[in-house]
This record gives sequence, C-alpha cells and structure tokens, in this order.
Amino acid sequence: MTWASIDLNADLGEGFGRWRLTEDEQLLSVVTSANVACGFHAGDAVTMRRVCAQAAERGVRIGAQVSYRDLAGFGRRAMDVPAEELAAEVAYQIGALQVFARAAGTRVSYVKPHGALYNRVVRDEEQATAVVDGVLLSGERLPLLGLPGSVLHAVAEKAGLPVVTEAFGDRAYTADGTLVPRGQEGAVVADVAQVVERSVSMARFGVVTSHCGRSVPVRARSLCLHGDTPGAVALARQVRTRLEASGVHVKAFA
Amino acid sequence: MTWASIDLNADLGEGFGRWRLTEDEQLLSVVTSANVACGFHAGDAVTMRRVCAQAAERGVRIGAQVSYRDLAGFGRRAMDVPAEELAAEVAYQIGALQVFARAAGTRVSYVKPHGALYNRVVRDEEQATAVVDGVLLSGERLPLLGLPGSVLHAVAEKAGLPVVTEAFGDRAYTADGTLVPRGQEGAVVADVAQVVERSVSMARFGVVTSHCGRSVPVRARSLCLHGDTPGAVALARQVRTRLEASGVHVKAFA
Amino acid sequence: MTWASIDLNADLGEGFGRWRLTEDEQLLSVVTSANVACGFHAGDAVTMRRVCAQAAERGVRIGAQVSYRDLAGFGRRAMDVPAEELAAEVAYQIGALQVFARAAGTRVSYVKPHGALYNRVVRDEEQATAVVDGVLLSGERLPLLGLPGSVLHAVAEKAGLPVVTEAFGDRAYTADGTLVPRGQEGAVVADVAQVVERSVSMARFGVVTSHCGRSVPVRARSLCLHGDTPGAVALARQVRTRLEASGVHVKAFA
Amino acid sequence: MTWASIDLNADLGEGFGRWRLTEDEQLLSVVTSANVACGFHAGDAVTMRRVCAQAAERGVRIGAQVSYRDLAGFGRRAMDVPAEELAAEVAYQIGALQVFARAAGTRVSYVKPHGALYNRVVRDEEQATAVVDGVLLSGERLPLLGLPGSVLHAVAEKAGLPVVTEAFGDRAYTADGTLVPRGQEGAVVADVAQVVERSVSMARFGVVTSHCGRSVPVRARSLCLHGDTPGAVALARQVRTRLEASGVHVKAFA
Repeated sequence: MTWASIDLNADLGEGFGRWRLTEDEQLLSVVTSANVACGFHAGDAVTMRRVCAQAAERGVRIGAQVSYRDLAGFGRRAMDVPAEELAAEVAYQIGALQVFARAAGTRVSYVKPHGALYNRVVRDEEQATAVVDGVLLSGERLPLLGLPGSVLHAVAEKAGLPVVTEAFGDRAYTADGTLVPRGQEGAVVADVAQVVERSVSMARFGVVTSHCGRSVPVRARSLCLHGDTPGAVALARQVRTRLEASGVHVKAFA
Repeated sequence: MTWASIDLNADLGEGFGRWRLTEDEQLLSVVTSANVACGFHAGDAVTMRRVCAQAAERGVRIGAQVSYRDLAGFGRRAMDVPAEELAAEVAYQIGALQVFARAAGTRVSYVKPHGALYNRVVRDEEQATAVVDGVLLSGERLPLLGLPGSVLHAVAEKAGLPVVTEAFGDRAYTADGTLVPRGQEGAVVADVAQVVERSVSMARFGVVTSHCGRSVPVRARSLCLHGDTPGAVALARQVRTRLEASGVHVKAFA
Repeated sequence: MTWASIDLNADLGEGFGRWRLTEDEQLLSVVTSANVACGFHAGDAVTMRRVCAQAAERGVRIGAQVSYRDLAGFGRRAMDVPAEELAAEVAYQIGALQVFARAAGTRVSYVKPHGALYNRVVRDEEQATAVVDGVLLSGERLPLLGLPGSVLHAVAEKAGLPVVTEAFGDRAYTADGTLVPRGQEGAVVADVAQVVERSVSMARFGVVTSHCGRSVPVRARSLCLHGDTPGAVALARQVRTRLEASGVHVKAFA
Repeated sequence: MTWASIDLNADLGEGFGRWRLTEDEQLLSVVTSANVACGFHAGDAVTMRRVCAQAAERGVRIGAQVSYRDLAGFGRRAMDVPAEELAAEVAYQIGALQVFARAAGTRVSYVKPHGALYNRVVRDEEQATAVVDGVLLSGERLPLLGLPGSVLHAVAEKAGLPVVTEAFGDRAYTADGTLVPRGQEGAVVADVAQVVERSVSMARFGVVTSHCGRSVPVRARSLCLHGDTPGAVALARQVRTRLEASGVHVKAFA
C-alpha cells in the first residue's frame, strides 16, 4: 500500500502571436501544474490570458515560467544578465501573469525558470539570487520549482521561500542523482514504456535507475512532462494513467 | 479668492536599456502623477522599478502609461490591433507595473494610453473599449486619464470606471475646446510665458484662449507636462511655481 | 492549343526561432517563386539562409517578402509607418535577404509586400511610394509582385520598376475583378476542386467566375498559393499538376 | 621624422527609434572609420541610412558593427549563441548595412564585433569562427577590426580574411600588452591629457606605458575613440588634432 502523491507539471502557452508550440488544452487535461510562458521566451498576452482561463477552469495550478528576454532563441541561450536586470525582469513577468491568473479567478502559485535560466541557476549563485529577488519583489512568497540540490533552491530557502523539487521521467540520471547533460549519449530516454516505468518508480519509491544501472534516490514532488514534441500529449496521458493505476495520487503540490 | 486644485502629470521612465529620454528624478520633484512607461513603447523593468521607488518616496502617484507594442516607433504609429489583443496587452502592462508599484509600497492608481493609442481612443470605439476591457481585466477600477469628451471616457464611464480629464498648457485649442491637431500651424505653444499663463488660466478658471482668440472652457483635473524636450523640466517647474503663487493647490486628483 | 505560362508563388520561411509555420521544403518542390520572410513579421537569419539555399538548389526564384516590423502581429496589423521609416525598413529587409541569396549562388529577384502592408499599398499612395523608394534604395530594379490595378503597381511603373500581377485561386472575385474582402461571406474558396479549377481558368484564359456568377478577366502572371494551412501543400501540388496537365507551362515570370 | 599613419574609429548610429546615443555628425568630422550599428544592439534603418549618407559625404569609411540580438542589453550581455545562428545573424546585419552603404555610393569595408561579442571572440574560438563564417557568407573578404592577438584575428587570418588591429587611448594596458579588464581599478584612463598623450605615443611609436609603469609595444593600425560619454567628441577632436600636430597622418587603414 502506498500513499504516494505527485504533481505533474508541463510548459504551456509557449506560442507567440501567429505561432503555436504546445497543445495547451490537451496538456491541461493531464497536468496538475501549468508553467505558463510570460512573454520573454514565448507567450503573448492573448495566449497567457487564454491558458490562465483554461487552467483555472480545470483546477490546474498556474506557475510563472520566467525566462531571459530572448524570443529569437526561445530562452535557450545562456545570457550574462546583470543581477539587477534579471531580478526586475523576473518580477515583471510574474506581475504580467498575475493579472491573467487573477482575472481567471485564481492566482500565480509558483515560479519556474525556463530553459537556459533554469540550467544556469542550478549552479550560478548570482543569477539564482536574482531570481529569488525577483520573486520577493513580487510581494508573494511563491515556491520555486526546480532541481533538488540546485543553488536556486539553496538560495530560496535561505530567503524563506518554499521550494518544490522536480524530476524527469524522460531524462537519464547519473549515479549521483543528477541529470546526464543533454548532448551526452543516452541523456534522453526515448522509449515510451521506459519513461512511464521510470516516472512511476520515482513517484512511488523516489528511486530511478541511473544510466550505469544503479538505483539512485531522486526526491521529487513534481514530475516534468514535455509538451512540445510529437506524441508528447499521448505520452503524458500514459504517465498519468499508469501513475494512478499504481496507486499514486496525482495532485498539485501543497 | 479661489480654492482651485490641479494635478500635474508627466510621462516618465521612457528610456529602454541603455537609452534615456526623460529626466525622471527632476520631473518627480514637480509632478503629482507619474505616467510610467510599461515596456511596450519604452520602459524596461529596471527603469520601471526605479521610477516606482522614486515616485513612492516623493508621494507622487503612479499611473500605467500603456501603449501599442512598438519600441521602434515609440508607440507613435497608429496600429490596427484587434480588440482582443489590445485588451490583453493593456492588462499585461498594468500587471507588470503593479509589481513594482507594490514593491515600492504603493499601487498603480490610474491608466493613461500613450502616443498613437492615446489619439486613437479619442474617437475609435473599438480600441477604446479594448483599453477599458484591459483595465477591467486588471481587476481594479482604475481611472482613465485622457481628453474630455473622448470616446475613451464615454466607454469608461459606461463600464463604471472613473475618468480624469486633462489639458495641455503647451497646445493650442480650437473654439470647440478641442486640440488643434499637431502638424497644423500654431498647434504647439512654444513661448514659455504663454504656456505658464495658459496653465494657470486653465487650472484657476477652467478657461483658455483659443487659437482664434476666444475664451473657451476646458474642464481638466490634470495638466500634462512634457518631459522629453530641452528645457522641459525648467518649464514644468515654472508652471508649478506660478500655479502655487496663484493660489492653486497642486495635488494629485482624488 | 495554348502557350499559356504561369508563375506559382508562395510565402516561405515564415517561422521565427523555435517556431515553424510553413512546410518550406515541400512548398519548394511546387512553386517557382519563393516569397522569403525577412525578419520583420517572421523569418530569422538561420531560416532565411536555409530557405535561400534550398530554393537555389531547386531553381526556385527568391523574392523578398517585406513587412511592417511586427513579430507579435505577424505583420497583419495595419500601421501608420512614416514614409521615411518604411522606405528604409524595406531596404533593410531586402539587403539582409540579398546576403543569403548571393551566398546560395543566386539573387533576390523580386519584392512582395506582406500582410497588412500588402493590403495597404493597394490604395495608399504614401506607403506605396515608400515601398518603391525602399526598392530603389536597394540599388536594383526589382519587380514588385502585387495586385493588378494596385496603387503600388502604378507608383512602381512611374518609377520605372517592373511589376508582376498575381491572382488567387482560393479567393472570390467581384464583378470588377477585385478581391472580395476577407471577412465577407464567401471571400475564401474552400473547395479544393474549385480552387484547382479556378487556378487553371485564370492561368489558361485569364478569366475567373465572380462571386455573382459572371466571367471576369483577371490578368495575372503569377498565382499565389497559401502554405500555412493544413492540406496546403497537397492543394498546391494538385494545382500545379492540373495546370501542367492542361498544357500550362509552370515557370517563373520573366 | 615619422611616416606614421593611424586610423581613428568610433561607434556610430547607436540610437534606436526615438532614442539617440552618439553624436554622429560631430564624430564623423573626427574619425576616418565609422562602426555603424546594424539593428541588433542599436541602429534602426533610418539611422543606418542617414549615418551611411553622412559618412560617404565626408569620405569616412563604413564598417558593420555586428552584435548579439539584444536591444534591451545593448549587446553588452554575453550570450551562448550557437555558431550557426551567430554566423547567419552576422551575415544578416552586414547585408542590411550594405544596402545603405551602396545607396550612399560607397560600400561596407570592414566588420567590427560589438560589446559582449567583441569581448567573447578575443578568446572563444567557436564564436570567433562563427563571426568569420558570417563575414564569408557576405561574399566579401572584409577585414575584421579587433584586438591584436585575439582568437578572432587568428581565425580570420586562417580563413584568408584581412585583420586590422586596434588600440585604446583611454584604457590601461598590462605589461603583456593586453587590456586591464574593466571593473579593475584604473582600467579606464579618465584624464584627458593622458588619453591624448597615450594615443599619440601608440600611433607614433607603437608603445604605451602599462599600468605598472613599463613601456609595452602595442601594434595598432586604428585607435578606437568612444563617442557615448559627455565630452567624448571634444576629446576625440583633441586626439586627432594632437596626432596631426605630432606628424601622424590620420587616415583610414588600407
């Protein structure tokens, strides 16, 4: 018998103007937390409004997916943004999203850095501090969704902000419990059955098999589902179905 | 003896990144209401934060100066933005500014459209309605600062939003009490003494001399001071000094 | 027996960064002229380079699809851009594309305004003149692809630039031979067989059936195929196949 | 007796839309080479056109000042732009500027990376190679203006492109002949007389006094003058006047 529960998060609203990327409505029927793009790497105001309304209607929690200002690079290019600028830009994005969350009768309830910023704040204390400062500027003690053991989480906790750890069913882990860097062979798990299996293992037992075959603990209160590839929605659905069939309670983190 | 009172507003924070335009600190020592650029025609996040902090410190009221998304054209090029987009973009800008106003211990307390949008909503009902919808989306019943008799004000009042009328000491008026369009000869009053005189006349008596020499009534609870020209700050100071010397109480509108 | 020949053009490279819109490779196997987005409504530098290389490889002619600066609105929002700015921005876009055309061993051989600018210069002499000035700035006497009878074509001819007329197999025509405005009922012809039939009729006989059932002459040296809807490539292929089966020579305009 | 000759270069056209930064006309009366911003960190199309026309009129050489795509950061934030994107974006900027140089009856005759890109390619081979690839894409063997000993120059020379070395009269040098990094104490020489003196010394003798008091050789065919600070134009003029008074021939590099 298990009482395990897990949150499922995915990036949503990652279109811009005429362009769409994510299947927002379908993903919203699967996830419990929606990382909504706020206009800096993707996400125009109309899309933000619509996704917030749809998320609110389904009871999906809304998070601010904050990014470097880089539409051309989709926020995937590391940038040396001075701390003062980064903090203000994080706050700006949160504020813009708050309007649409409130208009939908709900609120922004967490923050997740996107892309290159996500990777940077795993180790970079200056930028991690800037992200935390941006959240503090917003005036709400919003939890930061990110990697367990990241500098971002350390800085956030020191500042009194809650943190929420996440894991990836479709990424390989080292024996240390860290992600195998993209670009290395085997970094991404492509086999659907394996992704499902690993997701269930992490949610139920907090354990995953590392790329060298060892069982390693992975603390995670949320699993990140990717929504921008063909078959992504179907895979997300399978993960959720199998989690529930395994007795895992799929619900937003507290 | 008069108990007239008047608000003084000016555009602030109209730089972007490396570029500055307005003498924010000096203007903040003169005006009672600061129309803060929100990032669409000008105004990066660092500037927004700084101007809000400075305004709060001096007790100057903060307004959202919302604009078309047009950095290259400084929001001065009329755009046929569909109503749904415009409403969402207005809300986005207000939300972004709210973060910095709150972080400074105060709030956004009015909205003023900028440039081409300002001119458009004098007559265009669709865009005026979109601006009002954007304000309503923000969840606060923020007053709209604009021209007396504008369609924007009519639409706002119908929607239950307060309106605040403004006048221009440095613009010529027709016998109907409307502005002589820019581009027409004599549209702008360049003589400093005249600008001061006209400002005082409008604030004390609600009257200005039209370009054809008639006294016309101009209802205005706020005077707009321009801050982006050489000598602008000095002129603004003279206007304020002379208003006060004339017994006009310079204070933010209620 | 007919000696009719027709050019087929389509918009290509209309992605931006992470986002794609058009099936560039497939469309390049159908059309004879590629309207390549130049970065103002769509089209990043990598995409421009790739599309130019692919077009050159297939012997497809490259045209500069110039636009207002409006990524958020995909160039579909009318803008009052001052003539001087518009001319310079048109030249800028042409210059940027020329690099990639030359690098692919070919050249930019025509210009086609996009979206709201396309519609505007049908009637607006100031902006039409600005577009022509922009082309003249580029130093080459590039033909302007557009609607027969448009002000753009009149201005271009007066300036000594060649013009190339185009027609639309999927748009309804009035008895005057002008397009039924989008938004009006029946403006777009959805039935595939009809689109094919109308395309062939225009290419072979210079005639199309108007929305009120009359045969009207439509002078066109190029047919515009749309590439951004589901089924667009298949439709384009059918049009080309049927044109060739009807004895029409499909080739780039002279 | 000396036959020394030196080029003087400065950044120009670094405004955007409503914003100005550099005193373009005045600087053009001092320098022999104008690094014209191409729209990615600054420089709209109207400004590019005007600066090219003014430079051509005065016989000042035009160079493409290429940058990361970063208006908000003025190109001063290091970015991990993938090589393929960077090469294409460099080519795009060169192409856009070529239009205006040709329209002014002249041509783009060199390339100088701006800001964070300038600093990056001193050491980063991948990005240096991308910049060189971008220049090669442009189809002309344009010289690269940069630091002596930079990786950029090594890569350029290997690719058969000419290189032009530059030095800075207002920057301190180490005993190795490299720049004292900004941020370190004494990195910038503020004293006008010293800047003039050091400029003359480098131009005449190829020697400058390092921050630890040693004479170090500095090979430079061009001196970079800064144009975006108060007093910059006056200082630039003094440097030129003193160079000429010292018998140095101020002229564009060959």
